[in-house]
Amino acid sequence: MSKNQRIRVAQWGLGAMGQGVAKVILAKDGLELVGAFDISPELAGKDVGEVLGVGPAGVKISNDPASILDPEKVDVVTIATTSWVKKQLPDLKAIISAGINVVSIAEEMAAPEAQNPEEAVELDALAKEHGVSAIGVGVNPGFVLDHLVVVLTAGSQEVTSIEASRINDLSPYGQTVLSTQGVGTTPEEFKAGVADGSIVGHVGFPESVRLISDALGLGVDRVEQTLEPIIAKVPRQARDRVIEPGKVAGCNHIAVGYRGDEEIIKLIHPQQVDPGAEGVDTGDYITIHGVPEISMSTGPEIAGGKATAGIAVNTIPRIFAATPGLKRIVDLPSPTALMGPEAYERR
Amino acid sequence: MSKNQRIRVAQWGLGAMGQGVAKVILAKDGLELVGAFDISPELAGKDVGEVLGVGPAGVKISNDPASILDPEKVDVVTIATTSWVKKQLPDLKAIISAGINVVSIAEEMAAPEAQNPEEAVELDALAKEHGVSAIGVGVNPGFVLDHLVVVLTAGSQEVTSIEASRINDLSPYGQTVLSTQGVGTTPEEFKAGVADGSIVGHVGFPESVRLISDALGLGVDRVEQTLEPIIAKVPRQARDRVIEPGKVAGCNHIAVGYRGDEEIIKLIHPQQVDPGAEGVDTGDYITIHGVPEISMSTGPEIAGGKATAGIAVNTIPRIFAATPGLKRIVDLPSPTALMGPEAYERR
Repeated sequence: MSKNQRIRVAQWGLGAMGQGVAKVILAKDGLELVGAFDISPELAGKDVGEVLGVGPAGVKISNDPASILDPEKVDVVTIATTSWVKKQLPDLKAIISAGINVVSIAEEMAAPEAQNPEEAVELDALAKEHGVSAIGVGVNPGFVLDHLVVVLTAGSQEVTSIEASRINDLSPYGQTVLSTQGVGTTPEEFKAGVADGSIVGHVGFPESVRLISDALGLGVDRVEQTLEPIIAKVPRQARDRVIEPGKVAGCNHIAVGYRGDEEIIKLIHPQQVDPGAEGVDTGDYITIHGVPEISMSTGPEIAGGKATAGIAVNTIPRIFAATPGLKRIVDLPSPTALMGPEAYERR
Repeated sequence: MSKNQRIRVAQWGLGAMGQGVAKVILAKDGLELVGAFDISPELAGKDVGEVLGVGPAGVKISNDPASILDPEKVDVVTIATTSWVKKQLPDLKAIISAGINVVSIAEEMAAPEAQNPEEAVELDALAKEHGVSAIGVGVNPGFVLDHLVVVLTAGSQEVTSIEASRINDLSPYGQTVLSTQGVGTTPEEFKAGVADGSIVGHVGFPESVRLISDALGLGVDRVEQTLEPIIAKVPRQARDRVIEPGKVAGCNHIAVGYRGDEEIIKLIHPQQVDPGAEGVDTGDYITIHGVPEISMSTGPEIAGGKATAGIAVNTIPRIFAATPGLKRIVDLPSPTALMGPEAYERR
């Protein structure tokens, strides 16, 4: 990108996350928001800036995806519609087939080969055929519990095993998120919810394990996941209610990547409302056993919603410049905050 | 690199750091140590593995640099001879002109445009002319106080300012290192040593500031550095002596990057012997002010000597695969621990 030539971006999906992404795009000098698509008839025809509450942006939201699938007008599409590769696949194929690069925040797209290997092969071939590139990024998977782990081994002579955890607070979230973590259920209801798939915990652990294992060549060949209820011992304050002692305050989701019988990568994500009520600090914690030993923490945790919108936008110049194909965050120079012209370019 | 084709590496310089690098190369399945050069006549003709104490490696150390400058036999040279670009320049030009990629651990090479802009332009042009790539890496500059900062902004919507510090313990080091930090001097001698250039503190701050500023586009236009003595309040135990109260236990080196009059990047490196004697924990600390706010720490600090040897070796596959020219760590996919075949390849 020359300094006078902005990257033209269209936003696909204007739910809460998509709106967050669009707002960051609008704030960046090096990017131009040139299109917006959403299926909601209520949004059709409205100026995207008005919907975002930042004043007119001169871009109308369309219900027709064809409105943003013109490679003469759009360089990159950012898509925020779902967590799942199979569900997003037709849209991704439409974007790529139109000859447009794509950044997805679908959790499974961070490393689609982990759980959707056939779709990964298909997307890679399609992207190469059309001379564009595609990537999935987000705060987790895609950053805190995988890319940051990978980068922390930049100076490692040896890595024998890795343990990382992310302790966050679900208090700001609404019913949809709380339900997927079983918040407010009894321990019995939690167990039943995990069994019937209504309580899913975190989406993206197989992808994070795969990203780390592939990046370092750790040879993990199997991932096992467990979901256990976090039972409130004291009243826990959610946004719109109190979780009483004895009820489920969240879900402790753990993934372990094995090489043979050996535990190589352990990722822990105890999502819960109001952990502070029981003296638990939020934060991200990474321990790399090897030479040298490395132990890192953040406090509080890197804010999830903000960082996911940020990383989607920060990845735009990287995927615009990438060679054709399906990429992962470990394949490209790291995305970074886009604060001035130099941030868009890499040598 | 195919999985059956190892990258052929030669080591230039077999001082303490060069020996550390060579030892890691020898330990990696995907790399082959094919040559070793050092100016010391005492090392000439000796097997490098014997010198390293790891048993015969089948590679003899030569006093003749021509012995390792054959692009038919060597893919990458790792060079460990000096901290300074101007001092290393003739060697770098010889390697690049021979058509061989090069990884340097000279501190100033992490971002040579910071203090050696003419040499940076010359090296970039020469590397492009000969179709190879060159890079400088190390624990600091090149990793902890710059690349890690840059990567932590992967999800940042905005960055307003950055402060980072690295508190380490000089106790394990010998006289050469202690002298450059003024350890054991009186406050008056420290002041005189800074003035006459015998006490230099940390080498690489302008390079770290430049790496961060360029990567994010922060527009820093000026770097100011200060060196202050850290006066022992209690006896401090060095490797071979005790620093008595009132004497200098180390050097608190600070660099501030300004954009106009605004302090944008502040880097702090209080190197000292035995900080624990005064209750100071060693560690690396990074705070990124912006959206979101991010605060990271490691404890203890990421071990410097081990990580510098590690990052030099881990960078070999990245510089081998890079497009021609002079690179910085932010230009390439991050180096990572090389634990298996996948670690050598990026999509």
